[in-house]
Amino acid sequence: MTQNIYDNPEFFQVYSQMRRSVQGLEGAAEWPALRALLPELQGKRILDLGCGFGWFARWAREQGSGPVQAIDISEKMLGRAKEMTADAQIVYERADLEEVELPAAAFDLVFSSLALHYIENLQRLLALVHAALIPGGWFVFSVEHPVYTAPRRQGWVEYEGQQSWVLNSYLAEGMRCTDWLAKGVIKQHRTLATMFNLLLRCGFAVTHVEEWGPGEEQIAATPEMGRERERPMLLLVAARRASIPSALQP
Amino acid sequence: MTQNIYDNPEFFQVYSQMRRSVQGLEGAAEWPALRALLPELQGKRILDLGCGFGWFARWAREQGSGPVQAIDISEKMLGRAKEMTADAQIVYERADLEEVELPAAAFDLVFSSLALHYIENLQRLLALVHAALIPGGWFVFSVEHPVYTAPRRQGWVEYEGQQSWVLNSYLAEGMRCTDWLAKGVIKQHRTLATMFNLLLRCGFAVTHVEEWGPGEEQIAATPEMGRERERPMLLLVAARRASIPSALQP
Repeated sequence: MTQNIYDNPEFFQVYSQMRRSVQGLEGAAEWPALRALLPELQGKRILDLGCGFGWFARWAREQGSGPVQAIDISEKMLGRAKEMTADAQIVYERADLEEVELPAAAFDLVFSSLALHYIENLQRLLALVHAALIPGGWFVFSVEHPVYTAPRRQGWVEYEGQQSWVLNSYLAEGMRCTDWLAKGVIKQHRTLATMFNLLLRCGFAVTHVEEWGPGEEQIAATPEMGRERERPMLLLVAARRASIPSALQP
Repeated sequence: MTQNIYDNPEFFQVYSQMRRSVQGLEGAAEWPALRALLPELQGKRILDLGCGFGWFARWAREQGSGPVQAIDISEKMLGRAKEMTADAQIVYERADLEEVELPAAAFDLVFSSLALHYIENLQRLLALVHAALIPGGWFVFSVEHPVYTAPRRQGWVEYEGQQSWVLNSYLAEGMRCTDWLAKGVIKQHRTLATMFNLLLRCGFAVTHVEEWGPGEEQIAATPEMGRERERPMLLLVAARRASIPSALQP
């Protein structure tokens, strides 16, 4: 079972004040890059895994999408999401992505923003997502980048005059406990190779990979973002349901 | 034009004494992992880009491969390779991979070990490799991992009791000048995303990715290799020629 840190009152209070919580998609620096990986949404049936406050679901509907099923583990986030939503075509559902069940071949697009690094059994979820998509359907997601999740203790050092990220434990996959907004937030570190090979084995064709960092304009507006170019913090991936998962073949 | 550091007498002398130069493939710690990505070689026509002393070419022939064309920029290395080779089915050719021309649909397998990080125009070379393969043909290569090539100055620090790799400049692609065996060795840093997207755009289907680090047995035998698990030094990739490169489509 996932930790559900978002229902921790201390965490929720601080998270609720973040730019991305107050301003929605436009408050997330990586949103333009993630949006660029999305297909045309007109009429598409969408599943949003880890929907948080529902910003993506409402935006997708504004783009003319079909119905959106939006899943999150956090009661507090879903409560706030429902308050902000007046659209019968958006259905919110509370579920743990470790245990969720999904209908088969029911969606044209599965979207997930910064949720998969909480998932321990990623292969189970990817196989479900594959089965939940129609053939050729899209899977677009962001996740914390492995060089960001790897270290036992995250931090920066200055090395020969250059701000540098302290990278260790990269090949030691598994749980990481960080103090981010609250103490003891549990995430799962996986290498990029593992994520990629799991996608392949589950029957996805990866069509684009992006290791996101802020652009020049973003750094000009928020200079402290500059060091985000020293190491990628986020991984953005676009993939399509290709065929029968090789892992499931006889 | 590539630097051709291997013909620098100082570099060549030190490189010639490395385990992988003296013992061949078995002296390269990553060889078991790279070998595991290769298809069955029986009868396959092979191209080896950056063949060095020709260890792979001779090994492939021992596995029953068809003819091997082996290319390198270094006169010294090719000279040594020819001395060690008594097989008319291995043809050595001196060429700069930045400028090489390759025959179309002439190979079943293109192999390259630790050469592509010297190449500035990788897209040109990947498009050539794609065209040189038969449809469904294999491209298996190793390259220095982007977290290894990224830093302006490579180095380790101790951080909270943990040996840590100093990562910076990851998103700043381009030339890196390192002192490795000799002063001023020039390599090209590219992000993992760029390598991956170039492969896709050139019409490859990536079938396996490995971020290589030594295994337990290797560390037991050579304890100083232990810290190689803190960050991946090498990237190993298996891909297949999928279709017409999208970049070349009208």
